[in-house]
Amino acid sequence: MTVTDSTSGLVVRSSRVDTWRVHATQEVAYEIRQCDDVFDPDSTDLVHAARGAGSRRRFVVIDSRVNELYGARMVEYFDHHGVEARILPLEVDETVKNLDTVTRIVREIDAFGIDRRREPIIVIGGGVIMDVVGLAANLYRRGTPFVRVPTTLIGLVDAGVGVKTGVNFNSHKNRLGTYFDKSLTLLDTGFLASLDRRHLSNGLGEILKIALIKDRELFVLLDRFGADLLRERFQNSDRLGRRAAASTLQRAIQGMLEELQPNLWEANLERLVDYGHTFSPTIEMRALPELLHGEAVAVDMAITTMIATHRGLMSAAESASVLNVMAKLGLPTWDDSLDADLLARALEETVRHRDGQQRLPLPVGIGAATFVNDVTHQELDAALSSLHSASYSKELQTA
Amino acid sequence: MTVTDSTSGLVVRSSRVDTWRVHATQEVAYEIRQCDDVFDPDSTDLVHAARGAGSRRRFVVIDSRVNELYGARMVEYFDHHGVEARILPLEVDETVKNLDTVTRIVREIDAFGIDRRREPIIVIGGGVIMDVVGLAANLYRRGTPFVRVPTTLIGLVDAGVGVKTGVNFNSHKNRLGTYFDKSLTLLDTGFLASLDRRHLSNGLGEILKIALIKDRELFVLLDRFGADLLRERFQNSDRLGRRAAASTLQRAIQGMLEELQPNLWEANLERLVDYGHTFSPTIEMRALPELLHGEAVAVDMAITTMIATHRGLMSAAESASVLNVMAKLGLPTWDDSLDADLLARALEETVRHRDGQQRLPLPVGIGAATFVNDVTHQELDAALSSLHSASYSKELQTA
Ligand SMILES: NC(=O)c1ccc[n+]([C@@H]2O[C@H](COP(=O)([O-])OP(=O)(O)OC[C@H]3O[C@@H](n4cnc5c(N)ncnc54)[C@H](O)[C@@H]3O)[C@@H](O)[C@H]2O)c1
Ligand SMILES: NC(=O)c1ccc[n+]([C@@H]2O[C@H](COP(=O)([O-])OP(=O)(O)OC[C@H]3O[C@@H](n4cnc5c(N)ncnc54)[C@H](O)[C@@H]3O)[C@@H](O)[C@H]2O)c1
Repeated sequence: MTVTDSTSGLVVRSSRVDTWRVHATQEVAYEIRQCDDVFDPDSTDLVHAARGAGSRRRFVVIDSRVNELYGARMVEYFDHHGVEARILPLEVDETVKNLDTVTRIVREIDAFGIDRRREPIIVIGGGVIMDVVGLAANLYRRGTPFVRVPTTLIGLVDAGVGVKTGVNFNSHKNRLGTYFDKSLTLLDTGFLASLDRRHLSNGLGEILKIALIKDRELFVLLDRFGADLLRERFQNSDRLGRRAAASTLQRAIQGMLEELQPNLWEANLERLVDYGHTFSPTIEMRALPELLHGEAVAVDMAITTMIATHRGLMSAAESASVLNVMAKLGLPTWDDSLDADLLARALEETVRHRDGQQRLPLPVGIGAATFVNDVTHQELDAALSSLHSASYSKELQTA
Repeated sequence: MTVTDSTSGLVVRSSRVDTWRVHATQEVAYEIRQCDDVFDPDSTDLVHAARGAGSRRRFVVIDSRVNELYGARMVEYFDHHGVEARILPLEVDETVKNLDTVTRIVREIDAFGIDRRREPIIVIGGGVIMDVVGLAANLYRRGTPFVRVPTTLIGLVDAGVGVKTGVNFNSHKNRLGTYFDKSLTLLDTGFLASLDRRHLSNGLGEILKIALIKDRELFVLLDRFGADLLRERFQNSDRLGRRAAASTLQRAIQGMLEELQPNLWEANLERLVDYGHTFSPTIEMRALPELLHGEAVAVDMAITTMIATHRGLMSAAESASVLNVMAKLGLPTWDDSLDADLLARALEETVRHRDGQQRLPLPVGIGAATFVNDVTHQELDAALSSLHSASYSKELQTA
């Protein structure tokens, strides 16, 4: 319809549009690259990463423990490459994984001043610091590229390869965060040499998860070499051990990325990588600080292994073998906080996060999995008591 | 290469993969819908918005001024639809546009508890509150859908139609933020009835921007009806005025979206919608609180109109007509803080944000624009003195 203005003769057209649908397609691409020794002066990986070749200024956030161990080499490295690096060492644990730390980081970035297109933020450390700096990088000017150098096993196979950032809030883990893909990850397994045994086991728990849900061959590797890898901290010096270390990490990352890539923004709530993550958030919170994340995940996997066995999805031999490998990897299969009520509450909470359904991944044999929605309280009870006796009899065996 | 374990006979394959490139495509779609009276009890737009039909709980953040004016009707509306609404009125201005306010909002959301797939967060107010709540919604569980109900003109034609969220930080405007698309916007122009004259002019500044860079017909509308729309607050009661109001808003939004959609994440730094935003950030900061954003944008457009005129991109008649329309829309064309040094510094700052180049949009006649990279200090000087005399002679005329 048009209306004409009688004084000016202007024709005013009334458009019929009353709804706009905005469509766009975003292409996301990021890279994860193995790198033998990031602080080797001959290596340009770190200074050239993420289009950084054009500038010689870097803002670096580093886990203070890692800084104690590797800070001198890092400073030498940056000096050698003529990089003016502003180093921010952060004392990290879950309690500083919060918005205040994000604020502190962006304040320092702002004070240093960076050209966000040429001067990627660098983060060096475990999952905690990578998650926090990832959020800071995402927020700063609505997205500043960053380079991740994971120094823990969880970092190498999990926290450093996806796109999730996050901080804890209101005593909920990772309640606030984003998906942010402007990253490049440099994997240098040399850092594991100084990681303590428990954090290695913690990471092996996530590797075992990948083995159980989708990679039987990885399970076989863990069964055969897991104890060696743990003892040698993935720095095995013999040829076979070196291959085993490399192969274990590669298969774990490969498996993780195969699951993440088609579901980067977690639109699909049936995620195999959620295996071990149904009961573990509640167990972890309850048992803190006694249990690390990967340890709680192991306990969850032990429980669900029992559920799967009772359902006939796994043989008794297979489930015994799973618990046995957990022991080799230094992972617990039981925690004294466990009871059927706790598990029922944990399942309820998970159902809320998974849009009203359990969507519980259960192993099918070793190396495959399925999703179920009908786990009952009776099953939880039964799984718990089997697990209790299995774990205690094992403890007796190993004692 | 493979290595065989002589004791177990296990073959350990070493993969040649040492780099993973993760690729993914994200489809983004969001909607902006006109809606006659959102709080009309007969309208289901607001309760059904963003897949909200399945639940009767809503978390609502509302500008406290808007709440004073429309709160009673809103509560009636939610009551009528049986919605348990938790209303959070926020006193807003640029000083509360910060991370603390984001924290406060997410804390309240967490306390109320929402099912993020069925209970979109609702925000009702101007650009400030929409930007803050947008960031809170993005962060909460890494993305909770939200419904925007803009109540200012800037909100209707600009802040409410894109994907940017943000807060101020370290005295920089919008230094922290994200791009977040899980939104639905309901446009109800009725709210403008209570908006004060200056904030209407402020929004008209952004509409004029769209007219100048790409829509000559919109400029003609503003020239003919701008003063009426301002006086009647877009609630014109005659048929022609109603059409003019509708057409002005539709053309402005249409033009804005045509520019935003292909460049939603601002990967391309040549953005026509940055017209008026080269010098204005610095002018705005310098002149605060004397100048509103749209007023600073108008001053910037007046300056660049002069530059364009001196370059022969516009005729003298055209530039006079632009300044004239600014006056009709109640917009300033001059500020006493202006001097060539300030402009030079502003341009430098902008160059930093635009990856080393000016990428300055300049009008070509009325309704078209081009990008230039070679504006000199002499040109800034010359533009300023022409503008100074033009503005002062106009003041004398209108006085
Ligand atoms: N974003 C994701 O996708 C993702 C995935 C998994 C886990 N996470 C997060 O990661 C966090 C856990 O990560 P984490 O296990 O790496 O913990 P962490 O970052 O706390 O590191 C563990 C400990 O090891 C120390 N450390 C780090 N590197 C070391 C080294 N090379 N030598 C000696 N000590 C070293 C640290 O100081 C710390 O005390 C959790 O907050 C979890 O939410 C995120
Ligand atoms: N995200 C984006 O793409 C985008 C785009 C443009 C602007 N912005 C941001 O928007 C902000 C400016 O927005 P704004 O101009 O709407 O300012 P605003 O939100 O501060 O609102 C202006 C004033 O009008 C009052 N008000 C709001 N609605 C009213 C109504 N219906 N009746 C009477 N009073 C009412 C408010 O209380 C406030 O005092 C800036 O912070 C800017 O950065 C964001």
